[in-house]
Amino acid sequence: MSKSSLFERHKETLDKGIAASRSREYWTAYPESASPRIYGETASADGEAAFKSYLDKNFDLDQPGTIGTVGSEKSPYGFDLGVTYPKVDAKALVAGVEAIRQDWATASIETRTGICLEILDRINKRSFEIAFSIMHTTGQAFMMAFQAGGPHAQDRGLEAVVYAYEDMTRTPAVARWEKPQGKRDPIVMEKHFTVVPRGIGVVIGCSTFPTWNSYPGLFADLVTGNAVIIKPHPGGILPAAISVQICRDVLAEEGFNPNIVTLAADSVDEPIAKELALRPEVKLIDFTGSTGFGNWLEDNARQALVYTEKAGVNGVIIDSTDNFRGMIGNLAFTLSLYSGQMCTTPQNIFIPQGGIETDDGPKSFDEVVQALAMGVEKLNSDDARACAILGAVQSEATLKRIAEYGKGDNVILASRSVAMDGFDKATIQTPLILKATDESSYSKELFGPISYVVPTKNTEDSLNIFENSVKNNGAISFGIYSTSDAILDQAEAAACRSGVAVSFNLTGGVYVNQTAAFSDFHATGCNPAANAALSDTAYVSNRYRVVQSRKHI
Amino acid sequence: MSKSSLFERHKETLDKGIAASRSREYWTAYPESASPRIYGETASADGEAAFKSYLDKNFDLDQPGTIGTVGSEKSPYGFDLGVTYPKVDAKALVAGVEAIRQDWATASIETRTGICLEILDRINKRSFEIAFSIMHTTGQAFMMAFQAGGPHAQDRGLEAVVYAYEDMTRTPAVARWEKPQGKRDPIVMEKHFTVVPRGIGVVIGCSTFPTWNSYPGLFADLVTGNAVIIKPHPGGILPAAISVQICRDVLAEEGFNPNIVTLAADSVDEPIAKELALRPEVKLIDFTGSTGFGNWLEDNARQALVYTEKAGVNGVIIDSTDNFRGMIGNLAFTLSLYSGQMCTTPQNIFIPQGGIETDDGPKSFDEVVQALAMGVEKLNSDDARACAILGAVQSEATLKRIAEYGKGDNVILASRSVAMDGFDKATIQTPLILKATDESSYSKELFGPISYVVPTKNTEDSLNIFENSVKNNGAISFGIYSTSDAILDQAEAAACRSGVAVSFNLTGGVYVNQTAAFSDFHATGCNPAANAALSDTAYVSNRYRVVQSRKHI
Repeated sequence: MSKSSLFERHKETLDKGIAASRSREYWTAYPESASPRIYGETASADGEAAFKSYLDKNFDLDQPGTIGTVGSEKSPYGFDLGVTYPKVDAKALVAGVEAIRQDWATASIETRTGICLEILDRINKRSFEIAFSIMHTTGQAFMMAFQAGGPHAQDRGLEAVVYAYEDMTRTPAVARWEKPQGKRDPIVMEKHFTVVPRGIGVVIGCSTFPTWNSYPGLFADLVTGNAVIIKPHPGGILPAAISVQICRDVLAEEGFNPNIVTLAADSVDEPIAKELALRPEVKLIDFTGSTGFGNWLEDNARQALVYTEKAGVNGVIIDSTDNFRGMIGNLAFTLSLYSGQMCTTPQNIFIPQGGIETDDGPKSFDEVVQALAMGVEKLNSDDARACAILGAVQSEATLKRIAEYGKGDNVILASRSVAMDGFDKATIQTPLILKATDESSYSKELFGPISYVVPTKNTEDSLNIFENSVKNNGAISFGIYSTSDAILDQAEAAACRSGVAVSFNLTGGVYVNQTAAFSDFHATGCNPAANAALSDTAYVSNRYRVVQSRKHI
Repeated sequence: MSKSSLFERHKETLDKGIAASRSREYWTAYPESASPRIYGETASADGEAAFKSYLDKNFDLDQPGTIGTVGSEKSPYGFDLGVTYPKVDAKALVAGVEAIRQDWATASIETRTGICLEILDRINKRSFEIAFSIMHTTGQAFMMAFQAGGPHAQDRGLEAVVYAYEDMTRTPAVARWEKPQGKRDPIVMEKHFTVVPRGIGVVIGCSTFPTWNSYPGLFADLVTGNAVIIKPHPGGILPAAISVQICRDVLAEEGFNPNIVTLAADSVDEPIAKELALRPEVKLIDFTGSTGFGNWLEDNARQALVYTEKAGVNGVIIDSTDNFRGMIGNLAFTLSLYSGQMCTTPQNIFIPQGGIETDDGPKSFDEVVQALAMGVEKLNSDDARACAILGAVQSEATLKRIAEYGKGDNVILASRSVAMDGFDKATIQTPLILKATDESSYSKELFGPISYVVPTKNTEDSLNIFENSVKNNGAISFGIYSTSDAILDQAEAAACRSGVAVSFNLTGGVYVNQTAAFSDFHATGCNPAANAALSDTAYVSNRYRVVQSRKHI
C-alpha cells in the first residue's frame, strides 16, 4: 500500500500514544489478554505451530556479510531448539548496510513512522508465535512470555516511536522567516529543516527479555532514519529473528531495501558484539546486560552514542503496614515471578531489627521474615501453579549461583526444584531467601531468585543504606511499606537524590518489578544501573539531527 | 517578589519563545537595536561608566573556595583592564556548591523558570555595560559586542530555557492511572513525577564570545535545577563575572543561596578547567574552544555529559550567480566581520578553475578572486568604517598567524593594520586572502581573518571536497552560490549527509556567519565541529531526569 496511507492507517494509534505519554494515564495499544476473543480462536495453536516450524531448521535471511550459520539455543524447559541463523562477518555486514541505508535516511518522517507502526501491528498479530519463542529461550512461563514479550514489549516499542515522532515534528519542515527592517522592506527567507539520522544503530539484546529490552532501541533508531542491526544474546535469538523478519517484510513491501534491519546472531564462543560496536559506521548502540560489558561499550565505542541498562541492586524497605497480609502476598509474588530474573526484582529487603507495626499488631524482625518465607513457600507449594509463576531458570550461571548461595548457614528459605508436566528437564527453582550478615554480602547483584533480608537499626538506617547503595551500585526499582506519610516523603526525597523510581505500599495486583508503558518510566538514567530511561525525550532526541537550509525569497 | 509571580511576570515571553521555536519564524525577546528610544537616553553612557567602574579593582564575589585573586585581561584596543576576580580552589568550590545545591534542585519548575527569565531580563537591561566589557575583552567592535554579546546572546539563553521548560513539563507532575479489570474494580494509582537535576554543571567559555557561547549552557543547566560554575576564558572574564553577579543577585533576592551560580576565573599559567571537569560532583560540562581540549574533555570527564563546540573549517562554494555584485559584497562583509574570529566565518572559498557564469557575463577564476579581494579591500578602505566592522584581533596567536601566512607567495590580498582614533595600540587587521595550493594547506582551521580561494575542477568537485572536509574536519557554516536548482539540491543533499547547515545565494543583509535564535540552529551536532546544536531538545533533555513515585488510591 502507499507509504502515506500506512501513516494514515495507524495515525490514531500514534495520536493516542502521544496523548498517553503526556497524561501518563492508563493506555495500551496492544491487548495484554491472550484471549481468543481478541487474538482469534486459533491464535494460540497457530502460534505454537509456527514456533515449532522453526525448530531444527535454518532461519533464512538474505543478508550481506553472511559467512555460514550459527545458533545453539536451548529451551530452559529442556530441549535444544536446533535453529540456525546466518553467521555474519561484522565488517561486511556493516559495510553492506552502510551502502544501502540512504533511501531510508531520506524517507519522510511520515513514511518511516507509518512503516514502524505497521511493523508493530504485524508483530502484535504474531504475539503467540513470538511468545512461544520467548518462553523457550528465556524460560518465562507462557503467560508472561506472551504479555511481557508481546503486547508490553510492543507498547514499549510504540512508546519510542511516539517520543521520536513528536520530537522530530517539533521543528517544521519549512518556515518563512520575515525580519522587519523599519521603513525598508523586511528580509524574507525560506528555511528548510531536514531530520537526518546518525547512521547505523546496533541493538544488543539480553537473554531474559529479548523483545521487551530491544524494541525501544530498535524503533527509536528506525523511526529516526537509522539502519538497525539487532545483535541478540546467543541464548535468545529466535524472538529477535522473527521480529527482524517482520521488519524486513514490511520494508521490502514498501519498496525499501530490507537490509535496513538485519540480524547479527553469534555464539558464546565467537561473540561479535565488540567488533560490531567499534565499526566507525555504527553511531548508536543500545545495550541490556552486564555492567562489565556495558561499561566496556561506554568506554570504547566512542564513535557511537551508547544507551545502556546494566546491573543494579534493587531494594524494598519495610517500615510498617496497615495490610500485613497484602504486603507479604505482594512481595512473595514479586520475588517468585520469573524466578527473580527481572532487572526490577528486589534483592534486598530492609527490615528494622526491632520489628515493625502492622494491622495485625507488632511483628518482630523474625516474624516478618518468617511470614515472607512462608508466603513464598505457600505461593509455590503447588507445582503447576509454581511453574506458571516461576518459569524456568534461563542460565547455567544462575542455577550454579542458587546452589552456591544455598549452602550457607544464613538460609532463611531454601530453593527447591519444581517438576513440570511434559518438560522433565525444565530447570525450575523456587526463590532462595538469605539473611544478610554484612553489607559486602548484599551490595552486589545476585541475578536470579536470590534475595536478602537485611536487619537495620531503624527505617532511617534502611533509607540511608539503600540511598547509598543506589548511588554506588545502581537500582531500577525501589519499594517501601509505611503507614507514615513523613516516612514516605523521606523515601521519595531519597529516591529523587539517588535517582530511582519508588513504589509505595504495593499490596494488590501491582508489583514493584512491573512497569506500564506510557505511564511508568523504566529506569531513570541517573544511577549506575542505566544511563537512559524507557522512554523519554532524551532517549530519542539525539538519535537524529536537524540540518537546515535557508534562502531569500 | 514572590516566586510564582516572577514566572507569571515573564510567562508571555516564555510562551512566545515556545511558539517561535516551533514555527522557526522571526522572533526575538530582546531588541537588537541599541537605540536610546529602546534602552533609554542614558543607557550607553551609563553602561560605559559601569564598565569603567570595574577597571583596576577587585570584582568581589562572596564564594566558597576563594584562595586569593586572579585576572590579567587586556583590551585588544590596547590597555589592561586591571580587574581581579576571586581565585578559587576547584575542589573546595565544587564541595561548597555541592553542599548547598539541594534547595535549587527541589524548587519547582515554575520557580526556576521564573528566576531564569528574571535573570535574562536583568541581563538585558545591562546590555550596554556587558557590551563594553565584551568589546574590551574580545575586541569586537562596539555594535557587534552589543548585539551578539547582548540581545542575541540573551535570545540564545532564553531559547535554552524555552526548550527545557517545554520538555520538563511534557511529563505532568501528577497522574491518575486507572487500569480496567473487567468486571472487578479498576486498579487506581496516583503517580508523581519529579524532575531531578544531574548535579553541578561547568560552563567553559571562549575568548571571543564570552556570553553568546556560554548563556545556552548556563541557562539549560540552571533551569533544569543544576548548580552552575562558569569557567570563563582568562581573556574574557568580565562579561561572565557581570552575568554571574546578576544570577547571584536574583537568586539571593528570591531566597536561594547565591552560590547556585559561581565564577571560577583562572589564568593561562594556572588553568583549573581540567581539575574542575574531573570533580565527581560535576555532571554536566559545556565547552566552546579548541578541538584539542574539547576532545580531552570528552575522553576524560566521563562522569559528566559533555557538550562541545570545537574547531571547524567552514566553506563557501561559488558555482554561478545572478547577482555578482551582491555576492561579492556579501562575502566581503562576511570575511571582514570581527576579523573572521567567528566559528561561523568561512575559511575556504571553492571556485571552478574554469570560471563561473554571472549576471555580468562569464568570469574567470582570477576575475572572481580579484573581485572578492577588491571587495574586501574597498569595504575596509576607510579606517573608521573598517574599525567598526573588523573590531580588534583578540589574541597574540591570531596576530602571529596573520603575519606568518602573509609571508607566502600565494597571497591574493595582504592584511594591513588599521589605525583607530582614541585607541593607538588597538590590534586591528584587515583580512588576508590566500590562494590554496594543495588540500593539506586549507584543510585545517586557521582561526582569524585568513581565508583561501580554492580552484576546483568544477562545482561537483567543490561539493565532493567540501563534503569530505565537513566529515573529517567539521564545519559550522556552509554557503553556496548557484543559479541552478539542481546544484542547490545537490548541495542540500551533501549538507544532510555531512551534517552542516547551508545558506543559498546570500547577497543581501544576511550573512553565512550569522544565525538567528529561535529560527536557525547553531551547529548541527553531527560533524566534528560540535557534538550539540544550540538549541534543540537533545541539548536540554538529558540535563535532568524524572523520578517517579506511585501508590494505590
